[in-house]
Amino acid sequence: MKGTVGELGEFGLIRELTSRIGGAPAVRLGPGDDAAVVAAPDRRVVASTDMLLEGRHFRRDWSTAYDVGRKAAAQNLADVAAMGAVPTALLLGLVVPAELPVTWALELMDGISDECRVAAAGVAGGDIVRGETIMVSITALGDLGGREPVTRSGARPGDIIAVTGWLGWSAAGHAVLSRGFRSPRAFVEAHRRPEPPYPAGPAGAALGATAMTDVSDGLIADLDHIAAASKVRIDIRSAALDIPAQMSDIGQAVGVDPLHWVLTGGEDHAIVAAFPSETKLPARWRPIGEVLPARGRGVPRVTVDGAAWEQAGGWDHFAG
Amino acid sequence: MKGTVGELGEFGLIRELTSRIGGAPAVRLGPGDDAAVVAAPDRRVVASTDMLLEGRHFRRDWSTAYDVGRKAAAQNLADVAAMGAVPTALLLGLVVPAELPVTWALELMDGISDECRVAAAGVAGGDIVRGETIMVSITALGDLGGREPVTRSGARPGDIIAVTGWLGWSAAGHAVLSRGFRSPRAFVEAHRRPEPPYPAGPAGAALGATAMTDVSDGLIADLDHIAAASKVRIDIRSAALDIPAQMSDIGQAVGVDPLHWVLTGGEDHAIVAAFPSETKLPARWRPIGEVLPARGRGVPRVTVDGAAWEQAGGWDHFAG
Repeated sequence: MKGTVGELGEFGLIRELTSRIGGAPAVRLGPGDDAAVVAAPDRRVVASTDMLLEGRHFRRDWSTAYDVGRKAAAQNLADVAAMGAVPTALLLGLVVPAELPVTWALELMDGISDECRVAAAGVAGGDIVRGETIMVSITALGDLGGREPVTRSGARPGDIIAVTGWLGWSAAGHAVLSRGFRSPRAFVEAHRRPEPPYPAGPAGAALGATAMTDVSDGLIADLDHIAAASKVRIDIRSAALDIPAQMSDIGQAVGVDPLHWVLTGGEDHAIVAAFPSETKLPARWRPIGEVLPARGRGVPRVTVDGAAWEQAGGWDHFAG
Repeated sequence: MKGTVGELGEFGLIRELTSRIGGAPAVRLGPGDDAAVVAAPDRRVVASTDMLLEGRHFRRDWSTAYDVGRKAAAQNLADVAAMGAVPTALLLGLVVPAELPVTWALELMDGISDECRVAAAGVAGGDIVRGETIMVSITALGDLGGREPVTRSGARPGDIIAVTGWLGWSAAGHAVLSRGFRSPRAFVEAHRRPEPPYPAGPAGAALGATAMTDVSDGLIADLDHIAAASKVRIDIRSAALDIPAQMSDIGQAVGVDPLHWVLTGGEDHAIVAAFPSETKLPARWRPIGEVLPARGRGVPRVTVDGAAWEQAGGWDHFAG
């Protein structure tokens, strides 16, 4: 489709975008009315909102519209999964400049739709307005299926910390891309399209996780959220972390300790959780540390092999 | 509180905003975790997303932050009510420039919280990112309480059209403000803070409405959505519309037929619905027209006293 979204107009763009959306069992009433209707069999609905802003969270010269769509959907669906819920649907708020090519918006929608398909969720509705900068705002919904939501605040001393999914892959891919390379492909792909382990969220809840979150800001930063909310300390055993040989190779090539990516790289949306020590964890959950009693002020809440990790983990969106 | 949001930082701002939020019965788990948990006793959740962009939907020199918050919440909660649902909660996505005074963000939050209180809903969660232009993205959730959702597509020839709430008040208030006046206060207030008749949505559904929507773009424009979705024509009787004496006075003062505001003014979020002709409507629902069989192409779907309304109703967000 040729032309800009300004030429196509609001209603034309909505029509085109809506036509790209597949159905999903949970979406009882999709786009086109005052509001959508989504199944919530549990009698509770899990809901999370996140925004991606051009220039801040993505660049059009680095990411395709399709990849931005995949990423935007993934980070929201992962938040829902990290509560122990099965994602059901999402709503999309989209700010687009009038001069944006229609194809960009359509490819974004394809990315969102495809990521929804991976999670067996649907696009239930949305809103589009014209603005100067592209902004993708997504609210994802999910169903707990009778499980209690797993918050960040239930970790207890003696619990083990385990993770499933990818850690540091997106950061390694970013390092590759920012040096102008396009391979190794697996890491570049991981940066462009995270693959959150959606089923691990409900599975972790069913296994009895006491606290759970997805790794969006970096392992240390996200475990710090759990440690703070649970009023505990968490120690990570670095030897337990998986550093693939190829990631070590990239680290050597660009002069970065790959452990840095694994400990501080966000955006892979791995799922990390605390479990009572007696929990029999399936093989795909990798034990990486333990929960300890809190210590005094000024002591880091998350340590690596008993010591503070020298580099800052995570980041403040307003500080940059 | 002094300073800018850039000085306060992301986490500081989130903490301040979260402290302004009151609880609500439906919000089982509020802000601070990966996702919120909201009650959905009906086993379905109604959900709607809308965005307000600075410069496009509001101006900081015309509206206070508090009023922008009331308005942003109102338009989303009204969408949920217009499906026949009781609003339960909303999620807030906020883009703020680093140089924005913290007080502006806090007053916005107060406005959102207060409007939620009017609708007995709660703020369940949100996301904040830094950007060039203020953007308020809200996703409202609601519960159908066993009623079927009332879409726009169920109106049948012979149905009566009835409305409850305010029509044209916001537009009249806008006319007053844009000419530099501050009174009559009631209309200026109506422009700054719409008062959607939230309970009328579920009430309309319980009365057997065949189609329903809230008036956000203007009566003709929103009835046109119903007429298009229902494949019918709708005729409005202008004599049945309520034009208060004060609105006529404003019209005379500024040289505008007040019927124009009533027919094309949006943002009051009145609720308009089609009902089977035998429905005994309570006094607060005002019958204003009827549903007729569709006519051929090129004929307006919504007429006033049997004829096309000469002025354009509603607007395309991309055309301006």
